[in-house]
Amino acid sequence: MCDICVMNKVKDKMLSRRQFFSASAGAAAAAATLGAVTAAPPALAAGHGGVIDMSHKLSPEFPTFFGTPGISMEQQFTFPEHGFSLFNLSINEHTATHIDAPLHFTADGASVDEIPVTDLVVPLVMIDIAARAAENADAQVTPDDLQAWIDTHGDIPNRACVAMHSGWAGKSGSAEAFVRRDADGVAHFPGFHVEAAQMLLETGAASIATDTLSLDHGPSADFATHYAWLPMGRFGIENLAGLENVPAAGATLVIGAPNHVGGTGGPARIFAMV
Amino acid sequence: MCDICVMNKVKDKMLSRRQFFSASAGAAAAAATLGAVTAAPPALAAGHGGVIDMSHKLSPEFPTFFGTPGISMEQQFTFPEHGFSLFNLSINEHTATHIDAPLHFTADGASVDEIPVTDLVVPLVMIDIAARAAENADAQVTPDDLQAWIDTHGDIPNRACVAMHSGWAGKSGSAEAFVRRDADGVAHFPGFHVEAAQMLLETGAASIATDTLSLDHGPSADFATHYAWLPMGRFGIENLAGLENVPAAGATLVIGAPNHVGGTGGPARIFAMV
Repeated sequence: MCDICVMNKVKDKMLSRRQFFSASAGAAAAAATLGAVTAAPPALAAGHGGVIDMSHKLSPEFPTFFGTPGISMEQQFTFPEHGFSLFNLSINEHTATHIDAPLHFTADGASVDEIPVTDLVVPLVMIDIAARAAENADAQVTPDDLQAWIDTHGDIPNRACVAMHSGWAGKSGSAEAFVRRDADGVAHFPGFHVEAAQMLLETGAASIATDTLSLDHGPSADFATHYAWLPMGRFGIENLAGLENVPAAGATLVIGAPNHVGGTGGPARIFAMV
Repeated sequence: MCDICVMNKVKDKMLSRRQFFSASAGAAAAAATLGAVTAAPPALAAGHGGVIDMSHKLSPEFPTFFGTPGISMEQQFTFPEHGFSLFNLSINEHTATHIDAPLHFTADGASVDEIPVTDLVVPLVMIDIAARAAENADAQVTPDDLQAWIDTHGDIPNRACVAMHSGWAGKSGSAEAFVRRDADGVAHFPGFHVEAAQMLLETGAASIATDTLSLDHGPSADFATHYAWLPMGRFGIENLAGLENVPAAGATLVIGAPNHVGGTGGPARIFAMV
């Protein structure tokens, strides 16, 4: 998509951004006077503004690492019979857009409910390797990619989420296109090179994210990036969507991580505010 | 808690609010130049700022409407044996801090994945009935409560979430204190009076929220508020936490609703930005 097309698409999605941010300022003012009588009505946030949905929908059709459905739903109550409707959900924690907590690849790392809130509303660093990934499904985010971002935008911000945009999100409707297992069963999709993860350990980044099934690229046999990153107390996001709609720098990612006690991760609703 | 205590507590939680909002302005500027070469590094959002966690942790101990655990976790892979750890989750959709989608009380209303993003980042209207609820566990939000808020703060904003703060969130560690079933099995906790829900149907409010198990108060035998609200295409939030830390007006609620296709609701990670 052309630059101006992307810009217009983002603008369309943003709707009343100005209203949102002027409202935020109002909220800050309101909070500052909390407990005191508010003489004038404070400004209020608009119902929307500059918000982009970064989560895929969660369904049995979403491609999974093991190839089996990641969710099933069993209806416990039905509207015609009981007057209300309710399902019990069976969910593999690592399905669709989801968190990898440190506990996923450690014996005793932080579980998903232990990720601090301060790591869940953070600067989004978008690393665009889509052009390279279109030519090579095994493409990886490298230290050179990170350095190029830093040269343009400055240091990786503290607590940032550093996200790989490989263009894979649009392929999720087809397991064949998304996972690309070859005749030997080896998957082919992009991911973070372990050296990029190691470079980010030198920064204050709290998380890395991919728009594919894994933090490691498909052919990885040793999960080197998972093992480099998660045991260091950082977390990951897999199957992130919407990266084609955010700028390389400047967006804020709001990560609605699940908080089931002791979990190794789980589906998350994630928004970008631009 | 005294007014100044509340204010200081909120301030403590807010950390670097100013950094967050100046960063947001930077994000907007960055988005406006998306696609163009960014000459100067844009400002970036801080890792946190003015963010309050509004979700209870999800655990088998959290009190439920039916009294049975709302979640169970089955370990599928263990770190010592497999080199990574992973659980399968079994979750009753209406557990802990969660969404009631219109489909919960209709035959064909919107499912949880169909709630528009514009209804998920919205102004928070906090209706404080904690003093009354401390005297009467069956207390309800009434049209008079809504009118008092409007008289002070102005009209209910479009797409707002109107939330009842009854002081119940702090009782969730004990099912006995949170649900208060009497000798006849009747529950006693606060909720929205059906007439308050009906009054809000005249506004553009997108959702109502309670800090208790239900939109209706405990003694309700007919779920009148559920039936008045959800079939009109609006949604609800139950077991919201953190309302003691937000102002009556001016905060923005970010509702990380789950998006499993066809769901009647589900656990949600929710933040308030103040």
